[in-house]
Amino acid sequence: MKSWLIIAFVVIALVAVGSSRLSAADPAPVTAETLRKLEVELMKTAAARGSQGYMSYYADDAVELPNGADAIQGKENISKTMGFLDNKDNQLTWTPVYADISASGDLGYTYGTFEFRSKDKDGKPTIGHGKYTSIWKRQKDGSWKVVLDMGNDSPDPGKK
Amino acid sequence: MKSWLIIAFVVIALVAVGSSRLSAADPAPVTAETLRKLEVELMKTAAARGSQGYMSYYADDAVELPNGADAIQGKENISKTMGFLDNKDNQLTWTPVYADISASGDLGYTYGTFEFRSKDKDGKPTIGHGKYTSIWKRQKDGSWKVVLDMGNDSPDPGKK
Repeated sequence: MKSWLIIAFVVIALVAVGSSRLSAADPAPVTAETLRKLEVELMKTAAARGSQGYMSYYADDAVELPNGADAIQGKENISKTMGFLDNKDNQLTWTPVYADISASGDLGYTYGTFEFRSKDKDGKPTIGHGKYTSIWKRQKDGSWKVVLDMGNDSPDPGKK
Repeated sequence: MKSWLIIAFVVIALVAVGSSRLSAADPAPVTAETLRKLEVELMKTAAARGSQGYMSYYADDAVELPNGADAIQGKENISKTMGFLDNKDNQLTWTPVYADISASGDLGYTYGTFEFRSKDKDGKPTIGHGKYTSIWKRQKDGSWKVVLDMGNDSPDPGKK
Protein backbone atom coordinates (compact mmCIF):
# COMPACT_ATOMS: atom_id res chain seq x y z
CA MET A 1 0.00 0.00 0.00
CA LYS A 2 2.88 2.32 0.84
CA SER A 3 4.32 1.75 -2.68
CA TRP A 4 1.07 2.91 -4.29
CA LEU A 5 1.15 6.10 -2.22
CA ILE A 6 4.70 6.77 -3.44
CA ILE A 7 3.66 6.08 -7.05
CA ALA A 8 0.69 8.43 -6.70
CA PHE A 9 3.02 11.09 -5.31
CA VAL A 10 5.47 10.65 -8.20
CA VAL A 11 2.69 10.88 -10.77
CA ILE A 12 1.31 14.06 -9.17
CA ALA A 13 4.83 15.53 -8.98
CA LEU A 14 5.51 14.73 -12.66
CA VAL A 15 2.20 16.24 -13.76
CA ALA A 16 2.98 19.34 -11.70
CA VAL A 17 6.45 19.66 -13.27
CA GLY A 18 4.93 19.17 -16.73
CA SER A 19 2.32 21.86 -16.13
CA SER A 20 4.79 24.38 -14.75
CA ARG A 21 7.03 23.84 -17.78
CA LEU A 22 4.14 24.51 -20.11
CA SER A 23 3.35 27.72 -18.23
CA ALA A 24 6.96 28.88 -18.33
CA ALA A 25 7.19 28.32 -22.08
CA ASP A 26 3.80 29.83 -22.83
CA PRO A 27 3.03 32.63 -20.34
CA ALA A 28 -0.14 33.87 -22.07
CA PRO A 29 -2.40 32.00 -24.47
CA VAL A 30 -1.86 33.43 -27.94
CA THR A 31 -4.37 33.19 -30.75
CA ALA A 32 -4.92 34.75 -34.15
CA GLU A 33 -6.77 37.48 -32.23
CA THR A 34 -3.47 38.37 -30.53
CA LEU A 35 -2.05 39.33 -33.93
CA ARG A 36 -5.09 41.44 -34.84
CA LYS A 37 -4.70 43.31 -31.54
CA LEU A 38 -0.97 43.78 -32.17
CA GLU A 39 -1.73 45.38 -35.53
CA VAL A 40 -4.14 47.84 -33.92
CA GLU A 41 -1.44 48.66 -31.36
CA LEU A 42 1.14 49.06 -34.14
CA MET A 43 -1.08 51.48 -36.05
CA LYS A 44 -1.75 53.60 -32.95
CA THR A 45 1.97 53.66 -32.10
CA ALA A 46 2.90 54.65 -35.67
CA ALA A 47 0.27 57.43 -35.63
CA ALA A 48 1.66 58.75 -32.33
CA ARG A 49 5.40 58.24 -32.84
CA GLY A 50 5.89 58.00 -36.60
CA SER A 51 8.56 55.79 -38.12
CA GLN A 52 10.21 55.11 -34.76
CA GLY A 53 6.94 53.81 -33.31
CA TYR A 54 6.28 51.77 -36.44
CA MET A 55 9.72 50.20 -36.42
CA SER A 56 9.51 49.28 -32.71
CA TYR A 57 7.33 46.36 -33.85
CA TYR A 58 9.95 45.01 -36.27
CA ALA A 59 12.41 42.20 -35.47
CA ASP A 60 16.10 43.00 -35.96
CA ASP A 61 16.29 40.43 -38.76
CA ALA A 62 13.02 41.47 -40.44
CA VAL A 63 12.67 41.77 -44.21
CA GLU A 64 10.58 44.31 -46.10
CA LEU A 65 9.37 43.43 -49.61
CA PRO A 66 8.28 46.76 -51.12
CA ASN A 67 6.44 46.95 -54.42
CA GLY A 68 8.71 48.12 -57.26
CA ALA A 69 11.94 47.78 -55.27
CA ASP A 70 14.26 45.04 -54.08
CA ALA A 71 13.89 43.27 -50.70
CA ILE A 72 15.29 45.25 -47.77
CA GLN A 73 17.07 43.11 -45.19
CA GLY A 74 17.20 44.05 -41.49
CA LYS A 75 15.40 46.53 -39.24
CA GLU A 76 18.17 49.12 -39.55
CA ASN A 77 17.95 49.25 -43.35
CA ILE A 78 14.13 49.17 -43.33
CA SER A 79 14.08 52.13 -40.87
CA LYS A 80 15.91 54.28 -43.43
CA THR A 81 12.99 53.92 -45.86
CA MET A 82 10.22 54.70 -43.33
CA GLY A 83 10.89 58.42 -42.80
CA PHE A 84 7.76 59.24 -44.84
CA LEU A 85 5.75 58.20 -41.76
CA ASP A 86 7.15 61.28 -39.95
CA ASN A 87 5.56 63.66 -42.47
CA LYS A 88 2.18 64.75 -41.07
CA ASP A 89 0.78 64.90 -44.63
CA ASN A 90 1.16 61.12 -44.86
CA GLN A 91 -1.26 58.75 -43.18
CA LEU A 92 -0.91 55.01 -43.53
CA THR A 93 -3.82 52.97 -42.17
CA TRP A 94 -4.56 49.29 -42.55
CA THR A 95 -7.27 46.75 -41.82
CA PRO A 96 -6.47 43.08 -41.25
CA VAL A 97 -8.84 40.78 -43.15
CA TYR A 98 -7.58 37.49 -41.73
CA ALA A 99 -5.09 36.22 -39.16
CA ASP A 100 -3.79 32.74 -38.37
CA ILE A 101 -1.25 31.35 -35.95
CA SER A 102 0.67 28.07 -35.54
CA ALA A 103 -0.40 25.45 -33.00
CA SER A 104 2.76 26.25 -31.02
CA GLY A 105 1.81 29.94 -30.89
CA ASP A 106 5.21 31.18 -32.07
CA LEU A 107 4.55 32.10 -35.72
CA GLY A 108 1.55 33.71 -37.37
CA TYR A 109 0.44 36.05 -40.11
CA THR A 110 -2.15 38.57 -41.10
CA TYR A 111 -3.19 39.96 -44.44
CA GLY A 112 -5.42 42.85 -45.23
CA THR A 113 -5.89 46.11 -47.05
CA PHE A 114 -4.23 49.48 -46.58
CA GLU A 115 -4.84 53.09 -47.50
CA PHE A 116 -2.11 55.65 -47.92
CA ARG A 117 -3.33 59.23 -47.72
CA SER A 118 -0.89 61.88 -48.85
CA LYS A 119 -0.68 65.10 -50.87
CA ASP A 120 0.61 65.58 -54.40
CA LYS A 121 3.10 68.32 -55.32
CA ASP A 122 0.23 70.84 -55.63
CA GLY A 123 -0.99 69.99 -52.13
CA LYS A 124 -4.01 68.10 -53.44
CA PRO A 125 -5.00 65.08 -51.28
CA THR A 126 -4.26 61.67 -52.80
CA ILE A 127 -5.29 58.18 -51.67
CA GLY A 128 -3.39 55.02 -52.63
CA HIS A 129 -4.95 51.59 -52.08
CA GLY A 130 -3.18 48.31 -51.50
CA LYS A 131 -2.92 44.96 -49.79
CA TYR A 132 -0.38 43.64 -47.32
CA THR A 133 0.88 40.47 -45.67
CA SER A 134 2.66 40.67 -42.31
CA ILE A 135 4.35 37.67 -40.71
CA TRP A 136 4.77 37.83 -36.94
CA LYS A 137 7.17 35.76 -34.84
CA ARG A 138 7.48 35.46 -31.10
CA GLN A 139 10.96 36.55 -30.05
CA LYS A 140 13.19 35.01 -27.38
CA ASP A 141 12.07 37.65 -24.85
CA GLY A 142 8.41 36.69 -25.43
CA SER A 143 7.52 39.80 -27.44
CA TRP A 144 5.93 39.55 -30.90
CA LYS A 145 7.67 41.21 -33.82
CA VAL A 146 7.11 41.54 -37.57
CA VAL A 147 9.65 39.38 -39.42
CA LEU A 148 8.27 39.98 -42.93
CA ASP A 149 6.10 42.68 -44.44
CA MET A 150 5.00 42.86 -48.06
CA GLY A 151 2.68 45.21 -49.91
CA ASN A 152 1.22 45.61 -53.37
CA ASP A 153 -1.35 47.73 -55.20
CA SER A 154 -5.12 47.41 -55.34
CA PRO A 155 -7.52 49.18 -57.69
CA ASP A 156 -9.21 52.33 -56.38
CA PRO A 157 -12.51 51.00 -54.89
CA GLY A 158 -14.31 54.11 -56.18
CA LYS A 159 -13.31 53.41 -59.78
CA LYS A 160 -14.67 49.88 -60.09
CA MET B 1 14.38 -0.47 -2.40
CA LYS B 2 11.37 -2.14 -4.02
CA SER B 3 9.52 1.20 -3.95
CA TRP B 4 12.32 2.88 -5.91
CA LEU B 5 12.14 0.18 -8.56
CA ILE B 6 8.41 0.81 -8.92
CA ILE B 7 8.98 4.57 -9.14
CA ALA B 8 11.63 4.04 -11.81
CA PHE B 9 9.22 1.84 -13.76
CA VAL B 10 6.45 4.45 -13.53
CA VAL B 11 8.83 7.20 -14.71
CA ILE B 12 10.01 5.09 -17.67
CA ALA B 13 6.41 4.20 -18.55
CA LEU B 14 5.32 7.85 -18.42
CA VAL B 15 8.24 8.96 -20.59
CA ALA B 16 7.39 6.19 -23.08
CA VAL B 17 3.74 7.29 -23.23
CA GLY B 18 4.84 10.91 -23.70
CA SER B 19 7.21 9.98 -26.55
CA SER B 20 4.66 7.86 -28.37
CA ARG B 21 2.16 10.70 -28.23
CA LEU B 22 4.69 13.08 -29.74
CA SER B 23 5.32 10.62 -32.58
CA ALA B 24 1.64 10.19 -33.30
CA ALA B 25 1.10 13.95 -33.55
CA ASP B 26 4.20 14.58 -35.67
CA PRO B 27 4.77 11.63 -38.04
CA ALA B 28 7.68 13.17 -40.00
CA PRO B 29 10.08 15.86 -38.84
CA VAL B 30 9.41 19.00 -40.84
CA THR B 31 11.82 21.89 -41.13
CA ALA B 32 12.18 25.07 -43.17
CA GLU B 33 14.01 22.84 -45.69
CA THR B 34 10.74 20.92 -46.19
CA LEU B 35 9.14 24.11 -47.56
CA ARG B 36 12.07 24.82 -49.90
CA LYS B 37 11.76 21.29 -51.28
CA LEU B 38 7.99 21.72 -51.68
CA GLU B 39 8.56 24.86 -53.76
CA VAL B 40 10.96 23.02 -56.07
CA GLU B 41 8.32 20.26 -56.41
CA LEU B 42 5.60 22.86 -57.08
CA MET B 43 7.67 24.50 -59.83
CA LYS B 44 8.39 21.17 -61.54
CA THR B 45 4.72 20.19 -61.33
CA ALA B 46 3.60 23.54 -62.77
CA ALA B 47 6.14 23.21 -65.63
CA ALA B 48 4.85 19.71 -66.41
CA ARG B 49 1.10 20.15 -65.83
CA GLY B 50 0.47 23.90 -66.10
CA SER B 51 -2.17 25.62 -63.99
CA GLN B 52 -3.67 22.32 -62.80
CA GLY B 53 -0.29 21.19 -61.46
CA TYR B 54 0.30 24.58 -59.88
CA MET B 55 -3.09 24.67 -58.19
CA SER B 56 -2.70 21.13 -56.78
CA TYR B 57 -0.46 22.73 -54.12
CA TYR B 58 -3.12 25.22 -53.00
CA ALA B 59 -5.46 24.73 -50.03
CA ASP B 60 -9.19 24.96 -50.73
CA ASP B 61 -9.40 28.10 -48.57
CA ALA B 62 -6.23 29.73 -49.97
CA VAL B 63 -6.06 33.42 -50.79
CA GLU B 64 -4.14 35.02 -53.66
CA LEU B 65 -3.05 38.66 -53.32
CA PRO B 66 -2.14 39.72 -56.87
CA ASN B 67 -0.45 43.03 -57.59
CA GLY B 68 -2.87 45.60 -59.04
CA ALA B 69 -6.00 43.57 -58.30
CA ASP B 70 -8.16 42.68 -55.31
CA ALA B 71 -7.59 39.61 -53.13
CA ILE B 72 -8.94 36.38 -54.63
CA GLN B 73 -10.54 34.04 -52.08
CA GLY B 74 -10.53 30.26 -52.50
CA LYS B 75 -8.74 27.74 -54.72
CA GLU B 76 -11.62 27.59 -57.21
CA ASN B 77 -11.55 31.35 -57.87
CA ILE B 78 -7.74 31.48 -57.94
CA SER B 79 -7.68 28.65 -60.53
CA LYS B 80 -9.71 30.81 -62.94
CA THR B 81 -6.86 33.37 -63.04
CA MET B 82 -4.03 30.87 -63.57
CA GLY B 83 -4.80 29.80 -67.15
CA PHE B 84 -1.80 31.82 -68.37
CA LEU B 85 0.38 28.98 -67.00
CA ASP B 86 -1.06 26.72 -69.74
CA ASN B 87 0.34 28.92 -72.51
CA LYS B 88 3.72 27.51 -73.54
CA ASP B 89 4.98 31.06 -74.24
CA ASN B 90 4.72 31.80 -70.51
CA GLN B 91 7.29 30.55 -68.02
CA LEU B 92 7.04 31.40 -64.36
CA THR B 93 10.08 30.45 -62.27
CA TRP B 94 10.92 31.36 -58.70
CA THR B 95 13.76 31.08 -56.22
CA PRO B 96 13.12 31.00 -52.47
CA VAL B 97 15.50 33.28 -50.55
CA TYR B 98 14.42 32.28 -47.05
CA ALA B 99 12.08 29.82 -45.34
CA ASP B 100 10.94 29.49 -41.73
CA ILE B 101 8.54 27.21 -39.91
CA SER B 102 6.76 27.19 -36.53
CA ALA B 103 8.04 25.09 -33.61
CA SER B 104 4.94 22.89 -34.01
CA GLY B 105 5.76 22.29 -37.68
CA ASP B 106 2.28 23.16 -38.94
CA LEU B 107 2.74 26.67 -40.38
CA GLY B 108 5.61 28.18 -42.33
CA TYR B 109 6.53 30.60 -45.08
CA THR B 110 8.99 31.32 -47.81
CA TYR B 111 9.82 34.47 -49.68
CA GLY B 112 11.92 34.93 -52.74
CA THR B 113 12.20 36.29 -56.24
CA PHE B 114 10.44 35.31 -59.45
CA GLU B 115 10.89 35.75 -63.18
CA PHE B 116 8.04 35.71 -65.64
CA ARG B 117 9.15 35.05 -69.22
CA SER B 118 6.58 35.72 -71.89
CA LYS B 119 6.17 37.27 -75.34
CA ASP B 120 4.70 40.65 -76.26
CA LYS B 121 2.09 41.08 -79.00
CA ASP B 122 4.84 41.15 -81.63
CA GLY B 123 6.26 37.83 -80.36
CA LYS B 124 9.29 39.52 -78.79
CA PRO B 125 10.45 37.84 -75.55
CA THR B 126 9.78 39.78 -72.35
CA ILE B 127 10.97 39.18 -68.78
CA GLY B 128 9.17 40.51 -65.72
CA HIS B 129 10.86 40.49 -62.31
CA GLY B 130 9.23 40.30 -58.91
CA LYS B 131 9.17 39.06 -55.36
CA TYR B 132 6.77 36.71 -53.61
CA THR B 133 5.69 35.48 -50.19
CA SER B 134 4.05 32.06 -49.84
CA ILE B 135 2.53 30.83 -46.59
CA TRP B 136 2.27 27.06 -46.22
CA LYS B 137 0.03 25.19 -43.79
CA ARG B 138 -0.12 21.51 -42.95
CA GLN B 139 -3.57 20.19 -43.75
CA LYS B 140 -5.64 17.69 -41.76
CA ASP B 141 -4.50 14.86 -44.07
CA GLY B 142 -0.83 15.71 -43.34
CA SER B 143 -0.14 17.29 -46.74
CA TRP B 144 1.30 20.81 -47.04
CA LYS B 145 -0.62 23.39 -49.03
CA VAL B 146 -0.23 27.09 -49.88
CA VAL B 147 -2.78 29.13 -47.90
CA LEU B 148 -1.57 32.56 -49.03
CA ASP B 149 0.45 33.76 -52.00
CA MET B 150 1.39 37.36 -52.71
CA GLY B 151 3.55 38.94 -55.39
CA ASN B 152 4.86 42.37 -56.30
CA ASP B 153 7.28 43.97 -58.77
CA SER B 154 11.06 44.28 -58.62
CA PRO B 155 13.27 46.44 -60.80
CA ASP B 156 14.92 44.78 -63.81
CA PRO B 157 18.33 43.61 -62.44
CA GLY B 158 19.96 44.53 -65.76
CA LYS B 159 18.83 48.17 -65.52
CA LYS B 160 20.31 49.03 -62.10
